[in-house]
Amino acid sequence: MKLEDVLLKIQNGEMDIDSAANEIHTMSYTEVSDFAKIDSHRMCRTGIPEAVLAEGKEPDDLVEIVKKQVDCAGRVLVTRVSAEQIAKLRSNFESDNIEWNERANAAVINNGTQCPETGGVVGILSGGTTDVGVAEEANIVASEMGCKTITAYDVGVAGIHRLFPQISRFKETGVDAVIVAAGREGTLPTIVSGLIDVPVIGLPVSTGYGAGGSGQAALMSMLQSCSVISVVNIDAGFVAGAFAAQIANKVAKARK
Amino acid sequence: MKLEDVLLKIQNGEMDIDSAANEIHTMSYTEVSDFAKIDSHRMCRTGIPEAVLAEGKEPDDLVEIVKKQVDCAGRVLVTRVSAEQIAKLRSNFESDNIEWNERANAAVINNGTQCPETGGVVGILSGGTTDVGVAEEANIVASEMGCKTITAYDVGVAGIHRLFPQISRFKETGVDAVIVAAGREGTLPTIVSGLIDVPVIGLPVSTGYGAGGSGQAALMSMLQSCSVISVVNIDAGFVAGAFAAQIANKVAKARK
Amino acid sequence: MKLEDVLLKIQNGEMDIDSAANEIHTMSYTEVSDFAKIDSHRMCRTGIPEAVLAEGKEPDDLVEIVKKQVDCAGRVLVTRVSAEQIAKLRSNFESDNIEWNERANAAVINNGTQCPETGGVVGILSGGTTDVGVAEEANIVASEMGCKTITAYDVGVAGIHRLFPQISRFKETGVDAVIVAAGREGTLPTIVSGLIDVPVIGLPVSTGYGAGGSGQAALMSMLQSCSVISVVNIDAGFVAGAFAAQIANKVAKARK
Amino acid sequence: MKLEDVLLKIQNGEMDIDSAANEIHTMSYTEVSDFAKIDSHRMCRTGIPEAVLAEGKEPDDLVEIVKKQVDCAGRVLVTRVSAEQIAKLRSNFESDNIEWNERANAAVINNGTQCPETGGVVGILSGGTTDVGVAEEANIVASEMGCKTITAYDVGVAGIHRLFPQISRFKETGVDAVIVAAGREGTLPTIVSGLIDVPVIGLPVSTGYGAGGSGQAALMSMLQSCSVISVVNIDAGFVAGAFAAQIANKVAKARK
Amino acid sequence: MKLEDVLLKIQNGEMDIDSAANEIHTMSYTEVSDFAKIDSHRMCRTGIPEAVLAEGKEPDDLVEIVKKQVDCAGRVLVTRVSAEQIAKLRSNFESDNIEWNERANAAVINNGTQCPETGGVVGILSGGTTDVGVAEEANIVASEMGCKTITAYDVGVAGIHRLFPQISRFKETGVDAVIVAAGREGTLPTIVSGLIDVPVIGLPVSTGYGAGGSGQAALMSMLQSCSVISVVNIDAGFVAGAFAAQIANKVAKARK
Amino acid sequence: MKLEDVLLKIQNGEMDIDSAANEIHTMSYTEVSDFAKIDSHRMCRTGIPEAVLAEGKEPDDLVEIVKKQVDCAGRVLVTRVSAEQIAKLRSNFESDNIEWNERANAAVINNGTQCPETGGVVGILSGGTTDVGVAEEANIVASEMGCKTITAYDVGVAGIHRLFPQISRFKETGVDAVIVAAGREGTLPTIVSGLIDVPVIGLPVSTGYGAGGSGQAALMSMLQSCSVISVVNIDAGFVAGAFAAQIANKVAKARK
Amino acid sequence: MKLEDVLLKIQNGEMDIDSAANEIHTMSYTEVSDFAKIDSHRMCRTGIPEAVLAEGKEPDDLVEIVKKQVDCAGRVLVTRVSAEQIAKLRSNFESDNIEWNERANAAVINNGTQCPETGGVVGILSGGTTDVGVAEEANIVASEMGCKTITAYDVGVAGIHRLFPQISRFKETGVDAVIVAAGREGTLPTIVSGLIDVPVIGLPVSTGYGAGGSGQAALMSMLQSCSVISVVNIDAGFVAGAFAAQIANKVAKARK
Amino acid sequence: MKLEDVLLKIQNGEMDIDSAANEIHTMSYTEVSDFAKIDSHRMCRTGIPEAVLAEGKEPDDLVEIVKKQVDCAGRVLVTRVSAEQIAKLRSNFESDNIEWNERANAAVINNGTQCPETGGVVGILSGGTTDVGVAEEANIVASEMGCKTITAYDVGVAGIHRLFPQISRFKETGVDAVIVAAGREGTLPTIVSGLIDVPVIGLPVSTGYGAGGSGQAALMSMLQSCSVISVVNIDAGFVAGAFAAQIANKVAKARK
Repeated sequence: MKLEDVLLKIQNGEMDIDSAANEIHTMSYTEVSDFAKIDSHRMCRTGIPEAVLAEGKEPDDLVEIVKKQVDCAGRVLVTRVSAEQIAKLRSNFESDNIEWNERANAAVINNGTQCPETGGVVGILSGGTTDVGVAEEANIVASEMGCKTITAYDVGVAGIHRLFPQISRFKETGVDAVIVAAGREGTLPTIVSGLIDVPVIGLPVSTGYGAGGSGQAALMSMLQSCSVISVVNIDAGFVAGAFAAQIANKVAKARK
Repeated sequence: MKLEDVLLKIQNGEMDIDSAANEIHTMSYTEVSDFAKIDSHRMCRTGIPEAVLAEGKEPDDLVEIVKKQVDCAGRVLVTRVSAEQIAKLRSNFESDNIEWNERANAAVINNGTQCPETGGVVGILSGGTTDVGVAEEANIVASEMGCKTITAYDVGVAGIHRLFPQISRFKETGVDAVIVAAGREGTLPTIVSGLIDVPVIGLPVSTGYGAGGSGQAALMSMLQSCSVISVVNIDAGFVAGAFAAQIANKVAKARK
Repeated sequence: MKLEDVLLKIQNGEMDIDSAANEIHTMSYTEVSDFAKIDSHRMCRTGIPEAVLAEGKEPDDLVEIVKKQVDCAGRVLVTRVSAEQIAKLRSNFESDNIEWNERANAAVINNGTQCPETGGVVGILSGGTTDVGVAEEANIVASEMGCKTITAYDVGVAGIHRLFPQISRFKETGVDAVIVAAGREGTLPTIVSGLIDVPVIGLPVSTGYGAGGSGQAALMSMLQSCSVISVVNIDAGFVAGAFAAQIANKVAKARK
Repeated sequence: MKLEDVLLKIQNGEMDIDSAANEIHTMSYTEVSDFAKIDSHRMCRTGIPEAVLAEGKEPDDLVEIVKKQVDCAGRVLVTRVSAEQIAKLRSNFESDNIEWNERANAAVINNGTQCPETGGVVGILSGGTTDVGVAEEANIVASEMGCKTITAYDVGVAGIHRLFPQISRFKETGVDAVIVAAGREGTLPTIVSGLIDVPVIGLPVSTGYGAGGSGQAALMSMLQSCSVISVVNIDAGFVAGAFAAQIANKVAKARK
Repeated sequence: MKLEDVLLKIQNGEMDIDSAANEIHTMSYTEVSDFAKIDSHRMCRTGIPEAVLAEGKEPDDLVEIVKKQVDCAGRVLVTRVSAEQIAKLRSNFESDNIEWNERANAAVINNGTQCPETGGVVGILSGGTTDVGVAEEANIVASEMGCKTITAYDVGVAGIHRLFPQISRFKETGVDAVIVAAGREGTLPTIVSGLIDVPVIGLPVSTGYGAGGSGQAALMSMLQSCSVISVVNIDAGFVAGAFAAQIANKVAKARK
Repeated sequence: MKLEDVLLKIQNGEMDIDSAANEIHTMSYTEVSDFAKIDSHRMCRTGIPEAVLAEGKEPDDLVEIVKKQVDCAGRVLVTRVSAEQIAKLRSNFESDNIEWNERANAAVINNGTQCPETGGVVGILSGGTTDVGVAEEANIVASEMGCKTITAYDVGVAGIHRLFPQISRFKETGVDAVIVAAGREGTLPTIVSGLIDVPVIGLPVSTGYGAGGSGQAALMSMLQSCSVISVVNIDAGFVAGAFAAQIANKVAKARK
Repeated sequence: MKLEDVLLKIQNGEMDIDSAANEIHTMSYTEVSDFAKIDSHRMCRTGIPEAVLAEGKEPDDLVEIVKKQVDCAGRVLVTRVSAEQIAKLRSNFESDNIEWNERANAAVINNGTQCPETGGVVGILSGGTTDVGVAEEANIVASEMGCKTITAYDVGVAGIHRLFPQISRFKETGVDAVIVAAGREGTLPTIVSGLIDVPVIGLPVSTGYGAGGSGQAALMSMLQSCSVISVVNIDAGFVAGAFAAQIANKVAKARK
Repeated sequence: MKLEDVLLKIQNGEMDIDSAANEIHTMSYTEVSDFAKIDSHRMCRTGIPEAVLAEGKEPDDLVEIVKKQVDCAGRVLVTRVSAEQIAKLRSNFESDNIEWNERANAAVINNGTQCPETGGVVGILSGGTTDVGVAEEANIVASEMGCKTITAYDVGVAGIHRLFPQISRFKETGVDAVIVAAGREGTLPTIVSGLIDVPVIGLPVSTGYGAGGSGQAALMSMLQSCSVISVVNIDAGFVAGAFAAQIANKVAKARK
């Protein structure tokens, strides 16, 4: 029984108030769930892409899930895709409907639906060439959330002279948030944060070896940073991209 | 020799171009330093408060530093202040010029200069009463950066029914960013992030005991979150406050 | 406006169904909160005691909180109480209404209300004398939840001959669940679990020194146990007591 | 010489009391061992299944062991079975006698003997699809111990609206204990524990990446939980299932 | 009923064999416990001293325990004694009956009973002066177990020339086992093990700072040693002393 | 110039004393080195086997090294041998001269030389079947050092009744030292140490999973043990075997 | 516009001083970048080799990069080269132009350009044969930086008599800095540092197993060393080699 | 008998060569020890100061040790001195003979002997004011080793514009080695290493909080550095100072 039906019955004198109150109370689980569902719709509206983590999924199952999501949302981002998985996807979708980002091992499958443009601008920097994959995962997420992205890779501390012109370019373009991917000692976000007046998100990458390897030194270094930056988990390109886009879209919306 | 002097000498024919170019190149350290200084001025303009970490400083030295900062910037935030230090500050400044936040162990010293109002709005939640000190440190920073703040403490997962009305209040007020301070298992930011459509910054607090105590479980739990949140270091109220205010001020500026 | 008022208005024709449905939907937060509150009432009914963690609370605040809880629930358990705090509590409540457990640093404050008896039986063992405080915290919680408790302390592996008669006694009494507190190498729960046919909860204690000290070796050893035991955090006497009592009360209820 | 023989000799006057007492004392090792053996029989009676950890065993050895266990107990649970091992098992047992659970990589081999039904009910929840394998290991163990199981997978915090209807279903079915498998930040058991009035066992799963990956964040988060839950080791589906079934069977027995 | 009583009853025809066998079987718990007690007596006979860990004990309780042990065993070793505790002990025992080792914070209380002499010889080396306290704890334990001890302190790697004459002295004396206490990088046991042909026990000490401080580097370095040494926990002077004395006493016994 | 040559020259008046003293002092490095060589010869005499760690060595290089050692010492123990390496060894030595221990992945290559018999006796226990490989590595080392070994595998805490008869057997045989290999929670050495009056060496094995897996829990548990045991590194079968044999041989020598 | 052009315009009266100063200020990024570039040229001059970390690079990309570097610098060092990568390099460069170091998995590619000779001398020691690969990486770097290198491998503590003659040889050769590579317990640098009067750089190697394995014990042991040594990361042969060569070249330059 | 005496006896025909050779061989322990002593004299000559770690020493003992060292070496450096200890030292030495460095908690006690001047130059930088104590410990050590030191404190990354002029000053002065002390995220040494062409030693300081606090993040960040730096342990000012001075003195000696 739906809420309106209950109310109708009261109006019609078919149900007394106590029974109705009780009925509505027992509905409460569903109410809660509805409340949450509205929330999940809200997520769609705000442009956080329907994303599928391919890692560990059977290729056939993956195709199934992707199909449903495309039917429902028009586009779907698939991250951490294996060679076997992308092959399977390719044999199930038109090549025109697959945007494959090899460095990020991520794909966007669509049914022709275009990605909205929010007007938000996200800048993405990476310290070395080995950080590019994770940075590109952030890039593709921010793009799917409607942001324009601007990237500058391989501008790490070892060759810091490569950084300054890029910062200038970012300032000129007017970025709303900056993601800085860095492995090894993870210094770059601290430096960038001192050079540009927008929120900087540190994205530690699982490079490095020995003590503090696999991104641990980078993560700790960013958490201890004397500058004002916030951090996501090691290799969490998706989170960094979505968080930066969330900021950029908020600013873009306010601009309008 | 200043840049203008060199140029004047060229104009006056007192210096040839090669010598001047050389002179300017040798100036480059200072140039770099000037460039950075401009940047540090920029920070002032954007409202990041001149803050002094009192911890470990001699009371007399602290007074000295604070005086200089107040003369220069009109106001200064002093964090992690000991009983001895606040006593010393009180004997050196008019009581009207000291705003003391006991829970945060932080003070703002001013010379009558008012804090600017940016129009940004920052929401701050904390899971338990023990998290309030760190949350208040974030609060005072965001306030000094010109944001309006709205707080809701003791709304943790154990009594999650206390959370929902606060989220409603935040939505109605129109917060631009939300800080969620939580110790123990650090669940709250993940949940809040699923309920509200603004950037959520997780602030782990050094509560908890045994395995994962001192904020380690909270930090890891936030880094592993399935929701889209970013994180600062354990007890880093200052960073969380400044980062959230940076977002809020960006949005507020765009609104204007 | 309460739910019943809305329904009454429909019945009286003072409100149309659309407006009422809308009103109830906008109420949903409160509904959620009511739902949750009902849940917390449920907790009361099942006998989980209103407990206050005294650690870190101002004595005056503590008295305030305790008073409210006693008024509301008749009894309240206060854990991790300092010397100063218990003194303050003593000056605010009649000595007849304070049950003080010195080894557990815990108190029960009541207004004459007796603790219910559920019929559940919880056995509590500890390896050494230094584990007794944490074991007693578990004891007092289980007691407040209406269980009969039966304890045997200082029966660790070093003097394992002291263990067997206690296990016999536990079997004869008919315990429904057993808590085993142990520090150092944390072997005891594994051994007990092999000797008795009831759920065994391992409670690691922060004793030990050097590598694996502060309860880390005990916790890991229990997690790696070849026997079937479950574990709570280091020094988490409260959780162990409440979890064991929850089992015992379930069994006791089924017995009736 | 057996005990009865000694006694007979006393009765017949063939041995004096001192010698007999001495003889019995020297027997004590065997007595101890017999005592323990009775205990292991007791385990059989209470329904903890004879389980074989296949991991690391030679396929031929595994077949040997399984055959013995089936002969002795009628049924045997084999966990963490490789592709090669299940193939070998299949070529040695009738297909009717092999119940294969692919997601759990576990098999039950039987000689037609049915699993007893105890009347205990165990609920099993998992946060995401990647947690299902470990959850199913728990499921198969609890089933072999005679419990009815009821499962709900992929109801994690990211889509918390999917959780509430399942909790309702669990309540209606009347579960005696609930296992909650969760990786990443391991929030789910804490939430479930606040919604249902039965013992909740947290089962951390080795998902997640970066800091706190491989189940470490989930484990710590569960140990630090503000709710009353107990925990087993990362990926310890067997322990979780057996512990929950132990509770459920206790309750079921009391119900009779 | 005691075993002898049962046997007597059989002999007297007051009990049949089946009942008696049953009675003895039900006695088995006690039997186990007796078995264990015999074992604990065995420990006394082998000379492992009755030792009391004073740490964390109330001074009055400590006196009580010590008195009982002295009555029972003639002598008792008390380790990790605080200033308050030794004062209390001094006011309860004759000064002639207290042997106080200040560097080890350990005392032996006796009633005139002399320590036996086993003929075993234990050598004890320490790397630096800060390691002496822990080394002396080992010394006092080995002495109480009847061994002759021979010590050489402050012979660490930094001044390795001080080591060689001591090794010569140890060889001449004919040590049966050697304890090597070392903090910081814990190199000494590895070196000693290469120079002397007796079992070497590494005893890591909680000195050092920064990474690997508090004895962690010393412990790991000893565990990784290319030489053949065994190791005890950080600061575990008692265990090292008792283990070395156990070896020395075995050898001494064989010599006789 | 050799020492004797220098002395001859003094005797012959071909060199004055100062020059000779100087010459001998400059020789000192070699002297030191000689001193060390004598030491390494001493190792041979005491029966510590010339062992070769095969892991990571090229098969051809391994054969080369083994050949040299066999020529020099008559026998050589080779540990951690891969399938490829043992095949290569087999094609280079007579099958009569290769003793292959498959479970330990270790081989002894000899030229007909027999292993000496010292009369020492080493007992070796293991908790589970997965610990046998490491236990056998200890076994083969102790055997090569001339000890008689006596083993009992799969007697872990889960089936502790299997332990007692083995302890009896060890006592009857008269073991001089006992090695106890155990993974998971590593309880067994603590228990054994309470049951037998000889030095017990704990040998943690890299079994187990999740928190404390890979032998960490076993190692910590042994270091924290309330009993008197010493410990070697995880999987250090070689060190455990050599250390136990060193004790046993000392005792055996004293017996003679 | 270049700086010289601006100056020319002032000289020619085509630009006033304010505009020119402004122009130069806006140029400042490039200026900074030029400043930095000069710095990178400085690196070339000091002989730090252009090195390429091959690990993780596509073979084709690697060839591309190497070609550019060789064109630019005459020679390039490529480290951590896989079998596939070296094959690809071999098919793209003349065999005369490839110097392949198999143990270090490193290659130097040149166009005939010879490596300069600085006169610096670097000594390199390693503890065991498994440390040689990392030591050789250090060797090749120091060589490319123009140093003469002198090596002594497999001189670890277990056979310390092999060390002394090598130290003598190093002293006679006159080394300016010494690198000591060591895994397991990492003792060697501490010992070497006590025997020779030049800066000693500890290079921990990722050998070892169990607790402190993968170089952790070696690293900690070196950090805790009582001797005066400095340390680089685990397996950081490149850094150790370049740091030692930097010292040696400084000394060599001063000698001239 | 001394070596010369033996030689004399040969010369005098009072001893035959075989006996003499034997005598010298039996002397070898002493020889080794003499060899080492010569080494320790060598240390004196190279200027590494006789330093005493005061931490944990009784004030009276400290005075004793310091007196001996001053008598022997003319000067002695005492580090980590407590208030009580410095008071005691002051009451035992003339104030003219005590050089007290309050920030480093270190003193040099002398008998009028001047520190030698080697001509080496060591530069010392620190990131923040809290790092100065550790930096000053390095400073005082390098000074005692005869180096000229040049310092620049509080030039951390947060205000990087303060760094460049200092680097210029260091270059102009001609530093031979640079120590960079830094806590928190430990970025500074990496940056300095890119700006100056001398060996840079990273000195992590135990500042920072939360994850990676107490210098752990700084240490890891320096170990992972992309630049060529070497590292000492956290707070190891002494080691950093002595290592840098060792380099500087080598270079200075070569300059002469």
